[in-house]
Amino acid sequence: MPSLTTIAINTRGDYDFIDITAEVSQRLDGQAFQEGVVTVFITGSTAGLVLMEFEPGLIQDLKKALQRVAPVETYYAHNAKWGDGNGHSHVSASILGQSLAIPFSSGKLLLGTWQQIVLVDFDNRPRQRQIYVKIIQG
Amino acid sequence: MPSLTTIAINTRGDYDFIDITAEVSQRLDGQAFQEGVVTVFITGSTAGLVLMEFEPGLIQDLKKALQRVAPVETYYAHNAKWGDGNGHSHVSASILGQSLAIPFSSGKLLLGTWQQIVLVDFDNRPRQRQIYVKIIQG
Amino acid sequence: MPSLTTIAINTRGDYDFIDITAEVSQRLDGQAFQEGVVTVFITGSTAGLVLMEFEPGLIQDLKKALQRVAPVETYYAHNAKWGDGNGHSHVSASILGQSLAIPFSSGKLLLGTWQQIVLVDFDNRPRQRQIYVKIIQG
Repeated sequence: MPSLTTIAINTRGDYDFIDITAEVSQRLDGQAFQEGVVTVFITGSTAGLVLMEFEPGLIQDLKKALQRVAPVETYYAHNAKWGDGNGHSHVSASILGQSLAIPFSSGKLLLGTWQQIVLVDFDNRPRQRQIYVKIIQG
Repeated sequence: MPSLTTIAINTRGDYDFIDITAEVSQRLDGQAFQEGVVTVFITGSTAGLVLMEFEPGLIQDLKKALQRVAPVETYYAHNAKWGDGNGHSHVSASILGQSLAIPFSSGKLLLGTWQQIVLVDFDNRPRQRQIYVKIIQG
Repeated sequence: MPSLTTIAINTRGDYDFIDITAEVSQRLDGQAFQEGVVTVFITGSTAGLVLMEFEPGLIQDLKKALQRVAPVETYYAHNAKWGDGNGHSHVSASILGQSLAIPFSSGKLLLGTWQQIVLVDFDNRPRQRQIYVKIIQG
């Protein structure tokens, strides 16, 4: 597999949390990639990437925490101007972040047992998302 | 151009949002850099880097959201001790983050159309900022 | 020293802030590592990594700001289900982030004077933490 690949994912939007750990890990399988860093990057400005224990309770808890920072029901200048209704999605994505750098060794990501790579789609409608996985050896 | 360069930017401080996408992209122009990862890093502890749609409404919205986390007008132990008055600047910068890893291919950053690289200066006075752009090929 | 090493740290938990800048920098000492990027990554899902001025006032201020997002005393579905009592720890760690990419040159991290690499252990008990430091030259 080449060192740069993409993962395409159809989301439901509206705080959709999707565990992509297995798909990212696969990019290291059966490779000459022994040691290095994987950069996971999501394009777009209304979805983010996060490391977390992928567990239904925490999904609900993280969603609620982000809504303290970016409530759905409040004034957004973005919405006033563009009428998209997804001001909270943009702000949440920017705060969560859209890029992760994860080291690997012996072809395995050095994640903890309860530490998954999770895509969160904040947009207010289903989206097709593209994630880049870039492997740097060294 | 060498693989490590700097971008110097004079800001106005006070939540100054500056789009640096074009300047970062230029570092890949006319290069032998075909594929790899660009690390964008800002020094200092009162400014951050974020990926966002660079649009006046969202600038206002993100500022407001960060002020829910780090209000300007509240008690900061940092201010009480040092009298700098920029406790909110430090906290906002730490939460937003100061480093981004972005993959590139064919000499182009793999950003979405509405996804810009933005410097946010939270300090309470104008600053000269230094940003490192480091290109790793692979 | 090899390009991938670990730092083991015993924390007290409960918002324990520990400056690991010197330990990360040491990994570049006396090396052939001239220029590149260091990825600092913490395993687990209840601790984070942040860049900040390591100063007692700001430690208190950042803690308070994160508690606006993830208060200790509120309902967490994670706690309701698992009884761990550390729902706020998970959420805080996810928001702060667990991976940093920092460029270096001439064997030195390109940090600002008031910009330290800080481990924050949010868990509600002492933990032994493992941090990976991976050096990529280029």
